Amino acid sequence: VTGISDLRSVFAGKLLTDPADTAPFLTDWRGLWTGRARAVVQPDSTADVAAAVRWCAERRVPIVPQGGNTGMSGGATPDGSGDAIVLSLARLNRVRGIDTVNDSIIVEAGCILQAVQDAADRADRYFPLSLAAEGSCTIGGNLACNAGGTGVLRYGVARDLCLGLEIVTADGEIWDGLRGLRKDNSGYDLRNLFIGSEGTLGIITAAVLKLHPRPLARATAFVALQSPASALELLGLVRRRHQSALSAFELLSETCLSLVVEHQPGARRPLGSSAPWYVLIEFSGSSDEESLRADLEAVLMAGLDTGIVLDAAIAESLSQAAAFWTIREGISEAQGAIGKTIKHDIAVPISAIGRFLDQADAAVARRWPGARHVTFGHVGDGNLHYNFSPVPGQDGAAFMAMQDDLNALIHDIVVAHGGTISAEHGLGVLRRDEAARLKSPVELRLQHKIKHALDPLGILNPGKLIAVAQRSATEGAS
Amino acid sequence: VTGISDLRSVFAGKLLTDPADTAPFLTDWRGLWTGRARAVVQPDSTADVAAAVRWCAERRVPIVPQGGNTGMSGGATPDGSGDAIVLSLARLNRVRGIDTVNDSIIVEAGCILQAVQDAADRADRYFPLSLAAEGSCTIGGNLACNAGGTGVLRYGVARDLCLGLEIVTADGEIWDGLRGLRKDNSGYDLRNLFIGSEGTLGIITAAVLKLHPRPLARATAFVALQSPASALELLGLVRRRHQSALSAFELLSETCLSLVVEHQPGARRPLGSSAPWYVLIEFSGSSDEESLRADLEAVLMAGLDTGIVLDAAIAESLSQAAAFWTIREGISEAQGAIGKTIKHDIAVPISAIGRFLDQADAAVARRWPGARHVTFGHVGDGNLHYNFSPVPGQDGAAFMAMQDDLNALIHDIVVAHGGTISAEHGLGVLRRDEAARLKSPVELRLQHKIKHALDPLGILNPGKLIAVAQRSATEGAS
Repeated sequence: VTGISDLRSVFAGKLLTDPADTAPFLTDWRGLWTGRARAVVQPDSTADVAAAVRWCAERRVPIVPQGGNTGMSGGATPDGSGDAIVLSLARLNRVRGIDTVNDSIIVEAGCILQAVQDAADRADRYFPLSLAAEGSCTIGGNLACNAGGTGVLRYGVARDLCLGLEIVTADGEIWDGLRGLRKDNSGYDLRNLFIGSEGTLGIITAAVLKLHPRPLARATAFVALQSPASALELLGLVRRRHQSALSAFELLSETCLSLVVEHQPGARRPLGSSAPWYVLIEFSGSSDEESLRADLEAVLMAGLDTGIVLDAAIAESLSQAAAFWTIREGISEAQGAIGKTIKHDIAVPISAIGRFLDQADAAVARRWPGARHVTFGHVGDGNLHYNFSPVPGQDGAAFMAMQDDLNALIHDIVVAHGGTISAEHGLGVLRRDEAARLKSPVELRLQHKIKHALDPLGILNPGKLIAVAQRSATEGAS
Repeated sequence: VTGISDLRSVFAGKLLTDPADTAPFLTDWRGLWTGRARAVVQPDSTADVAAAVRWCAERRVPIVPQGGNTGMSGGATPDGSGDAIVLSLARLNRVRGIDTVNDSIIVEAGCILQAVQDAADRADRYFPLSLAAEGSCTIGGNLACNAGGTGVLRYGVARDLCLGLEIVTADGEIWDGLRGLRKDNSGYDLRNLFIGSEGTLGIITAAVLKLHPRPLARATAFVALQSPASALELLGLVRRRHQSALSAFELLSETCLSLVVEHQPGARRPLGSSAPWYVLIEFSGSSDEESLRADLEAVLMAGLDTGIVLDAAIAESLSQAAAFWTIREGISEAQGAIGKTIKHDIAVPISAIGRFLDQADAAVARRWPGARHVTFGHVGDGNLHYNFSPVPGQDGAAFMAMQDDLNALIHDIVVAHGGTISAEHGLGVLRRDEAARLKSPVELRLQHKIKHALDPLGILNPGKLIAVAQRSATEGAS
């Protein structure tokens, strides 16, 4: 393989080779994975991306696409071989257009999620994808990983917010699929195939996104409950009466709340009493705030009457609502403050959440008595972050030594309940082998056929999502 | 290729070979396509389907999957060679289970759509896929074609109502992807790849479908307008104020209304006056009927004030609402009553509807002065049925002789406006070559790679959606 000097000549953007410049691209934001690369390529345009990919394809050079480098599964970090280039989409960050009649916006892959939200807002529209990293993650990465977040219950995952894509294929061609259509049955669903493929089938360079009307009012409640089963009962009650108003339903345990109150400056308990579990409920919509509040109050009163709800507070102001959300969003950071963490991003059918938790809690207690659970998540989507922290005084290394066994234990129970081991974070390198262990041979064969069909040389983000051997130059493509 | 006597022994269901028995499966319901087949296979179970497919794969026998045989594009009719078997899913019609906490239902491919709606209804839930053929089409066919219909504006297309699939692959393996999950990022999106693939990548044998809360109230209006541009203005007004209540927004021309009033027994004009265009608007939800009606009335009053709305009637009773819907749903039949029809199932960005209609109407008028337009559709989705009927006295054959030129003229304008030539009907054989003419070479190559990866022998519904040569036994699979 030749050096990178001639790569410089094929595209107009930046080429970083100085170790001081490339370092931030070679380690993920949590510092869990570090790799090496020949160079970091920052193209300026889609044509630039295509040219860089063609250069790589001709030389069998692996390509690791990277957006904001905020992923949770190591999907954007090169391996240790130093063979790859990192293809950073950061400079492709233009808003190409907004259409307020079609309620759609065309953005380049490197746009920061918050910039997309802001562009929608300036046009009096709403882009509902929302997650903790929104100030630094890019929309290309969100789509490559099919991101979730707190708006899924009403608006769906990233997949549901995308109408069309522009893709650079593994052979450096540009597919213009930037359609702003609500309906299109004119062939195989390429869009959804590229979404969630973590850069292993093609490189997302731009997208048409769906916009929604801006909610005119919100009502937010913090609710104390005895158990996740009560949370599900309450969710059922809310959905029957106020499905169209419901926009968030987030579960957290007392452990989560205590951690945040202890470690987050200014955080306060929203309720006078404590309880084993809590949910944060948000109603939003185009009706006036008073009627939203009245609806939320009515359903909580009904919950109190039947004993599902132990206690509840409805935010009296925007700042109080923000304080409720700050608790929910502060859990990961608070968990990080007390040491290493073992995380699970699982989902099961909503009806199986109670049984899953009973069985998983019991299995963990048998194997690691006294383990410290930090459980929270998007319970309305069936998605839990079933996490663990060291118990006070426990050695970090001893705690992390549990990780593989704990993962396998939890994942087996997840699969037994018809669930997934990656609900919203993607497989990357973190979950790749567990997914391969747990999926059926038929499903794995289908996945491999698709990978091989669209990236026969195996140069697109090799080793991520799926284990496929890269082909050497002498083997060539079949 | 051997005879079918040994096919009989590999599966438990019905095998039809008598021409009197097979005839209904060899012609589409509109009588536009007729083919031949070795036999019609009606498996009893997924294992049966897999056995039949393996038998075919070993012998390179083409398979034409068929549900209710109600498709619009000839996708379920065998060709004239007599080589294929028709694989009818009709006997796979069990509801395997319903989960009212997860709001999901597992159904087999041969379930009639209405039976799925009814099963949801009995469980106090709502399955919102709704279209004219719902009494005879099957859910497997709906998913294979990614059906649309009148519920798309709020609930999405068939794709958006499906959580998981069970598939028999081209080599006769069973993929159990019957997951009831709202979030799953554990690999490539096989589900959406099979949905809309018209039986050319795998055979859908069962599905997990999403259920919704049953709407407790509805309000329905019939509204007179000057132009499609007014319809779009009104749609914008409605969406800004009452997005969460809006469940249907259907456009029809005065020609459509006159046809229905003339040809449908008992049909009456909903308004005293006539106007060039109409929309049928439905609000529905969990609020009470009075407040829904009041909201609908308020937005129509606002439309009257600004001159967008010429006249409007809100249904006073369920039967009046049903009468409004009967007009909308009677257009196709009324159009059939006056002779042959040339149909287009197009979609453009909602913002382009006005420009598309201006340009298409003008181009048609230049080429065929006096052509009789029968335009209606799901304007809230950007999807129009831009149809034509013979003018009174015009010879049917002379009219149909226009078809290819008319299609090409319209489709070119659709594509120039960023649209699709198949919004909800699929390509089948009807639109296959036009799609190939209009799609980019890059997109066609991607489609072919996927087809070849998942059906290397080319035995799954050959000639539908995509033109791929079937491989002979001597060529084998690559």
